[in-house]
Amino acid sequence: MRNLSLIFLFCLLSSLSHAIELDFCVGDPSLPRGPEGYACKDPAKVTTDDFVYTGFRGEKTPNNVFGNNVTLAFSDVFPAFNGLGISMARLDFAIGGVIPVHSHRTSEVLLLVKGTIIAGFIDTNNTAYYKRLEVGDVMVFPQAMLHFQINVGKTPATAFVSLNGANPALQLTPTSLFAGNLPADIAQQITLLSHEEVRRMKRIFGTA
Amino acid sequence: MRNLSLIFLFCLLSSLSHAIELDFCVGDPSLPRGPEGYACKDPAKVTTDDFVYTGFRGEKTPNNVFGNNVTLAFSDVFPAFNGLGISMARLDFAIGGVIPVHSHRTSEVLLLVKGTIIAGFIDTNNTAYYKRLEVGDVMVFPQAMLHFQINVGKTPATAFVSLNGANPALQLTPTSLFAGNLPADIAQQITLLSHEEVRRMKRIFGTA
Amino acid sequence: MRNLSLIFLFCLLSSLSHAIELDFCVGDPSLPRGPEGYACKDPAKVTTDDFVYTGFRGEKTPNNVFGNNVTLAFSDVFPAFNGLGISMARLDFAIGGVIPVHSHRTSEVLLLVKGTIIAGFIDTNNTAYYKRLEVGDVMVFPQAMLHFQINVGKTPATAFVSLNGANPALQLTPTSLFAGNLPADIAQQITLLSHEEVRRMKRIFGTA
Amino acid sequence: MRNLSLIFLFCLLSSLSHAIELDFCVGDPSLPRGPEGYACKDPAKVTTDDFVYTGFRGEKTPNNVFGNNVTLAFSDVFPAFNGLGISMARLDFAIGGVIPVHSHRTSEVLLLVKGTIIAGFIDTNNTAYYKRLEVGDVMVFPQAMLHFQINVGKTPATAFVSLNGANPALQLTPTSLFAGNLPADIAQQITLLSHEEVRRMKRIFGTA
Amino acid sequence: MRNLSLIFLFCLLSSLSHAIELDFCVGDPSLPRGPEGYACKDPAKVTTDDFVYTGFRGEKTPNNVFGNNVTLAFSDVFPAFNGLGISMARLDFAIGGVIPVHSHRTSEVLLLVKGTIIAGFIDTNNTAYYKRLEVGDVMVFPQAMLHFQINVGKTPATAFVSLNGANPALQLTPTSLFAGNLPADIAQQITLLSHEEVRRMKRIFGTA
Amino acid sequence: MRNLSLIFLFCLLSSLSHAIELDFCVGDPSLPRGPEGYACKDPAKVTTDDFVYTGFRGEKTPNNVFGNNVTLAFSDVFPAFNGLGISMARLDFAIGGVIPVHSHRTSEVLLLVKGTIIAGFIDTNNTAYYKRLEVGDVMVFPQAMLHFQINVGKTPATAFVSLNGANPALQLTPTSLFAGNLPADIAQQITLLSHEEVRRMKRIFGTA
Repeated sequence: MRNLSLIFLFCLLSSLSHAIELDFCVGDPSLPRGPEGYACKDPAKVTTDDFVYTGFRGEKTPNNVFGNNVTLAFSDVFPAFNGLGISMARLDFAIGGVIPVHSHRTSEVLLLVKGTIIAGFIDTNNTAYYKRLEVGDVMVFPQAMLHFQINVGKTPATAFVSLNGANPALQLTPTSLFAGNLPADIAQQITLLSHEEVRRMKRIFGTA
Repeated sequence: MRNLSLIFLFCLLSSLSHAIELDFCVGDPSLPRGPEGYACKDPAKVTTDDFVYTGFRGEKTPNNVFGNNVTLAFSDVFPAFNGLGISMARLDFAIGGVIPVHSHRTSEVLLLVKGTIIAGFIDTNNTAYYKRLEVGDVMVFPQAMLHFQINVGKTPATAFVSLNGANPALQLTPTSLFAGNLPADIAQQITLLSHEEVRRMKRIFGTA
Repeated sequence: MRNLSLIFLFCLLSSLSHAIELDFCVGDPSLPRGPEGYACKDPAKVTTDDFVYTGFRGEKTPNNVFGNNVTLAFSDVFPAFNGLGISMARLDFAIGGVIPVHSHRTSEVLLLVKGTIIAGFIDTNNTAYYKRLEVGDVMVFPQAMLHFQINVGKTPATAFVSLNGANPALQLTPTSLFAGNLPADIAQQITLLSHEEVRRMKRIFGTA
Repeated sequence: MRNLSLIFLFCLLSSLSHAIELDFCVGDPSLPRGPEGYACKDPAKVTTDDFVYTGFRGEKTPNNVFGNNVTLAFSDVFPAFNGLGISMARLDFAIGGVIPVHSHRTSEVLLLVKGTIIAGFIDTNNTAYYKRLEVGDVMVFPQAMLHFQINVGKTPATAFVSLNGANPALQLTPTSLFAGNLPADIAQQITLLSHEEVRRMKRIFGTA
Repeated sequence: MRNLSLIFLFCLLSSLSHAIELDFCVGDPSLPRGPEGYACKDPAKVTTDDFVYTGFRGEKTPNNVFGNNVTLAFSDVFPAFNGLGISMARLDFAIGGVIPVHSHRTSEVLLLVKGTIIAGFIDTNNTAYYKRLEVGDVMVFPQAMLHFQINVGKTPATAFVSLNGANPALQLTPTSLFAGNLPADIAQQITLLSHEEVRRMKRIFGTA
Repeated sequence: MRNLSLIFLFCLLSSLSHAIELDFCVGDPSLPRGPEGYACKDPAKVTTDDFVYTGFRGEKTPNNVFGNNVTLAFSDVFPAFNGLGISMARLDFAIGGVIPVHSHRTSEVLLLVKGTIIAGFIDTNNTAYYKRLEVGDVMVFPQAMLHFQINVGKTPATAFVSLNGANPALQLTPTSLFAGNLPADIAQQITLLSHEEVRRMKRIFGTA
């Protein structure tokens, strides 16, 4: 029987030897990147550690102007996601902290694991859907819709989100408009905000 | 020969008689809708007129607070787009008019046919890419990225855009935040805008 | 200004009044279902509660032969996922409990929130990738690959998984082969398991 | 043990009872159809026979002007293909028979099981790729490219093709131009064919 | 506040520094190409000019046997389209000019900006849908269906088309059959055209 | 006329010269591979032979422990499939031979060309759908579902399968669990099989 199985194994391994490469495509950032993601790391060098991400362990202290700490596990920091169409992020909120209004190329689902937050999204009819969530609650934010989270509890809060893209984009509206190179006069025209408010916002982000 | 071809035609028509139904799926809004679009209108009732949209004809006068007039040819108004993954819109600008910052679920390509505009988008690194366009110029706005257009010429301007979705969503940032039911205090928290500015914006849209 | 904005709003609402329907497509199981999911619930009847799932709250006691308790939040129990291509599940393990070897139509990412487990998957070259995970660790299981989780700690364990499909299928190998209507002789032939072992397995699942 | 497994089964069946519906979506042509295919037949009425197609059995005699007999197994005649993105067809050739130049929405792969044919396709640079095939040979025709098959042997020939769409379209160039309602003068203008040749072709198909 | 925002910015830029790469993937033709398009140009070298195409400016004089001038803006000439699934073309017609019958891998939408044309497509049931269009009219041609345009006015005409693919293929039926390397006898067999007509057509395209 | 057509051809070839590259993307395994497949072989070096696969010719003798001989024509052995989303395999069965229970990332359609087999699949509700097939019969196995084939006739049998992926994965349950590096104790825990049976299975595959 052992001989038979060895023959079988040899036969199987011959025909499958390359097929394995696309069971997964752990990204190799040193190679050219295409529209669908990174080129694949040599499968012979892939180990179990490539499929495990440990960057969510421990405490994450919010330390920015929004009172949040966002830990992204997108395909650039966790290359095992490359080509698989899924990714995650951890959201930590100080008391009163927020994730400002933002959007992604994909849909997102949020799971609250600590604290109490209000989460919501706005649809293209300008209707806002928002609710106070308890620990264990799940909320979904449809693809590309503006959404936000606010810590409304008396303690820090933590949530985990999953997105159905390996590199789903995180576009924060306030920083897009005020923290980069967009001129103040354009920002003003395309938002109807006042000249003074645009300058105040740019000062917050150090670009005035 | 005629007999042969009749036999052939009969044979062909028999085998193809249902296959034609998905060469196209003109939407029928009276039937239940699924995540991929409307159910199909009975193909026997489809005529050439279903495939032609005439709503872009003539003059379009900008008459809103932004100085624009947006004519959407999405699958709800032009049901031939249903299931085909493409749509269009016409943008008319008064002198000084703008299409405020907004995003879609899809990518968009713009063709300027009259006037002079500045068009641009912002990426997730807060970098703005914007440029003055002449008649005949084309600019592409990648999927889900915030983008905008401003008439910077001394005459009205007109552009046509195409999007690679039948119902690609049009989410205007200012109206999402200030023209709907989102409470002022939430709008303030998720944007860092001042209390006064949020109230001013809501007054513009009649929701203060 | 108010008049202008009212005109603008009217103009905007007219053109967008149907477009909103596919910002989301909360499933309506009472309507016919298509290959891409359920037909959409009337958007006028959708409320924030449709987007929030509370079924993961509280304790979940493992009570089956595998020592697990699987709470699926697929589109049939949480219709807001319909059409959005994402879903979740909660996995609770008794001491020594397992999620037996299984697969999905989609990829999956797991987040361990309590206890210590070994998680792993097997690729088409018969190579197993498995590892002991700590609280906070994330592991990804590529699309369609057989995978499993085992509680190897001295306490119960809990994990949450996300999958990039609204209804991603959960096909457990042991129950597929032994808990349904597959005849024992076929199960034996297609697995090479012994006659006695197949009967023993079918007794476990009450189908002998 | 039996009690435990019954509890387990009950638990499993409860949570999975609706999930089974999209393991497959056998089409029900009596329900409204969407852009992605037919609505699903009630899973409770689906049997093994739904997944087996017997229309390829036996002899198929070519009897049309092209000397072929095409048996399509698309989703309209084999509803199990609905939503699965795959379909088949059987091609029988008389001596000298041809499948005239045609195209599909999808890619196609052909397997020759009897006789000798020349098969080929033309790319968008007007380069034709064609070759004489033996029994057992496989040729692939890339998505949407014009392609054809000619029986060049001294016996009838048979091939089977698979296409990666449930309803991949079969658009025959000669019948598109000459066997339907396209006026002769338009056919002439859009092909550069002579007036006389267009009339000759329309006579072949009984539409002159 | 400035310190806070600097900390925030540093934190944000760190976590996002690579994520920006797939907001867009401007094609780099000097790198290996994959099935989904070109590899991405180094994002650090991308400027606004990469997103603007000026090749549609000015007059385009029809000068070929069909009386047309087709200016393609596919991803090879406008690499910003790479990976975004959209493209454009400009069609200029001499008086009496035509775009001969052709097809694409994708769907197409046409906007007439000058003159009067008849545009149409043929479905797989050999039904032609065609209509006289006025300036401003839009017509859609479903994926892979044969279609055509004819200038029927007394002046030159111009139209712009958009297609939902970055490289959607343009396969002209007459040149596919007669302007390349397809032998005359095969062209004759797969079309039922006469020997003389095939030779006449090949003479038109210089391949007799 | 010849001059005109030469001018036309020059014009056409100029504008299309790169567009041809993605009519097909024959894989080049010497270049880096991405999640969507291999990079494309230089189109200038592609010939008709690249599109024809001859590996299914002749007799195939089953010689392994399962009594089968599986000849895979996936994109690694037939690179023309690269990027086209389709592939094939030939299945030869000795008398009594089986293709053991297995799954793919894609759907599969089987055509029986010799002998008599029982083919079937199991859905996520543990319901098995299986049937005795005659020559010419077709059976479809939905995406990712466990399925199998058994030669139940008195002669060898042969079938061809097509799958809607270029590299659709072949994951055999018995070899996944027992022929690779998965430790015996894990295999036992995740299947509920007995310690003795796991060891017997591993001996069959030479891994005990």
